[in-house]
Amino acid sequence: MKTENENNINTGMSCPVPIRDYKQILMAHGGGGSLSHQLISELFVKVFDNPALNLQHDGAILDISSTKLAFTTDSYVINPIFFPGGDIGSLAVNGTVNDLSVCGAKPLFISAGFIIEEGFRIEELWKISLSMKQAADDAGVQIVTGDTKVVEKGKGDKIFINTAGIGIIDNDVNISPLNCKPGDVIIINGSIAEHGIAILSKREGFEFESEIVSDCCPLNGLVQNILTISKNIRTMRDATRGGVATVLNEIAMSSNLGIVIEENKIPVKDNVKSGCEILGFDPLYVANEGKVLIIVSTEDAEKVLQVMKNHPYGNDSAIIGNLVEENPGMVVMKTIVGTTRVVDMLSGEQLPRIC
Amino acid sequence: MKTENENNINTGMSCPVPIRDYKQILMAHGGGGSLSHQLISELFVKVFDNPALNLQHDGAILDISSTKLAFTTDSYVINPIFFPGGDIGSLAVNGTVNDLSVCGAKPLFISAGFIIEEGFRIEELWKISLSMKQAADDAGVQIVTGDTKVVEKGKGDKIFINTAGIGIIDNDVNISPLNCKPGDVIIINGSIAEHGIAILSKREGFEFESEIVSDCCPLNGLVQNILTISKNIRTMRDATRGGVATVLNEIAMSSNLGIVIEENKIPVKDNVKSGCEILGFDPLYVANEGKVLIIVSTEDAEKVLQVMKNHPYGNDSAIIGNLVEENPGMVVMKTIVGTTRVVDMLSGEQLPRIC
Repeated sequence: MKTENENNINTGMSCPVPIRDYKQILMAHGGGGSLSHQLISELFVKVFDNPALNLQHDGAILDISSTKLAFTTDSYVINPIFFPGGDIGSLAVNGTVNDLSVCGAKPLFISAGFIIEEGFRIEELWKISLSMKQAADDAGVQIVTGDTKVVEKGKGDKIFINTAGIGIIDNDVNISPLNCKPGDVIIINGSIAEHGIAILSKREGFEFESEIVSDCCPLNGLVQNILTISKNIRTMRDATRGGVATVLNEIAMSSNLGIVIEENKIPVKDNVKSGCEILGFDPLYVANEGKVLIIVSTEDAEKVLQVMKNHPYGNDSAIIGNLVEENPGMVVMKTIVGTTRVVDMLSGEQLPRIC
Repeated sequence: MKTENENNINTGMSCPVPIRDYKQILMAHGGGGSLSHQLISELFVKVFDNPALNLQHDGAILDISSTKLAFTTDSYVINPIFFPGGDIGSLAVNGTVNDLSVCGAKPLFISAGFIIEEGFRIEELWKISLSMKQAADDAGVQIVTGDTKVVEKGKGDKIFINTAGIGIIDNDVNISPLNCKPGDVIIINGSIAEHGIAILSKREGFEFESEIVSDCCPLNGLVQNILTISKNIRTMRDATRGGVATVLNEIAMSSNLGIVIEENKIPVKDNVKSGCEILGFDPLYVANEGKVLIIVSTEDAEKVLQVMKNHPYGNDSAIIGNLVEENPGMVVMKTIVGTTRVVDMLSGEQLPRIC
């Protein structure tokens, strides 16, 4: 118990402000791109400093009584809260299920923290809760603890939901970007950019000939299937904020290898492609909520691909590229027209409040 | 992957709206009192329905590979974010540490989910992060995973923080209101109402002769000490939102016993008493962030009290009452003037955004 003036904690660390010229939080600090990464690595990781956090994976891997657990958290501030293919509730469950899954964990338990704006309709809260329950049942997880806070009208935006999740990791599963080797194959479980374009269409009132629907879904079933048939899954990442491009950059950096992808192998549905063109977005940077990038050994790639294709959430799975020794930390794309270009991490803000 | 129109989930449950006349979320639905309880029991528990959640404790008790874990979550939306005795960062860590502690768990790991309003000063985020780190170190826990979201200016309020926590429960620890017996003793670890009055003074610009400082602190050390020396700790609750009165009501209801407390035994500091009088609050309903109510067998009460008094966060510990067979589910107070009165659960809103 300290008085306010005693709160000046002296850790010997100096405040890293400005962080690359910024003294204030910008929307882009929450965008999942390079500014988000700077904020995390130059502020949070520096301060909270511990081995589990420093790995900067989607979740922490914890050893508790010689049981390997994954632990993750995400807050969902998506706007609009209801969208084609889901709502903030199903998103909040699936997002955390997927973060646990890509740690190699079987998701078990979910917490739900609601921050609700005064005046929010209880009927909408009910609808969102049902949708969370349905998503939890679909993924085989339980929502076991929760919290509700209410803020004054104008101090929030309808509803924000935080979910944290706990999953268990089998002893023989070892998922880490450090396991990646040159030659490893990159597989994605289907067509990209659907979530982001679905949200943006809804938000901006665009109508496409065929409705674009979010790919929001739980990936634990698909992931468990491939972990069962291959012991050579090196690492996995779900391609949410910042899209496939950002996640591939993260894998390249953390594995210290180069990545080469081929544009013509990356599945994008026609209506999503048109949507991206009209709206001026590169699908590689648009958020997904049901897409996972799998890095697997060359030998196991074909077998893993087949298992993925047989799963309802993996029918359109495709091999999109490889890890290479050249250009460590960098992602290069062979384009449809035969040129190559560097695929950077998303810089600045692309789509705010997409998840 | 469903289109929006397919989102109508049919579970056979009908929307419980209005919940006791209310169709919209009021501030009081987040106040920790009776409206909060109705929202939880008539909406969330109905929908999410599972044994761990249905207990409605501060955290869920989970069995993972025959290890007993506690899992809890809380979002912190306190205003102001810096206050005498702490800030939103130390509060977010201590609050979750305490929720795990009262489950009988040793807190181990914490997640941190930030929802930040665009334009928030990075220097303040740094200060809050340092304070979280300090609180985590003091409590012996690690912040192992996190998430940052940014919302547009005017769609949030500076910063909201969610923390979830995992703790481990020793096999011989069994904390549950169902263990309570008539005659059991109620101990509190010190003087009440300090957090709420500290926040309100700061918010409203009141100045008292001596500054009122929040009691925000980690209770895991004190709780572990008493669990070590007594196997007859029936249940524990930290008295946060809704104050001592609300938590005692919860214990009375869930144990199906009556509670009798004595007003003259409840420690309240003089300046806090004056503050309450001036501001028109009953200290029994004002939030604490470092106070725990311990229910213990008669035989062990004196020994537990001594151990508590020897702990830095328990110097002013006091026995304040007993569980009784009469009036199950009800809390009765013997007042200083010799009368008795029923102490209800907080109804409506008392202090918004106190945590």
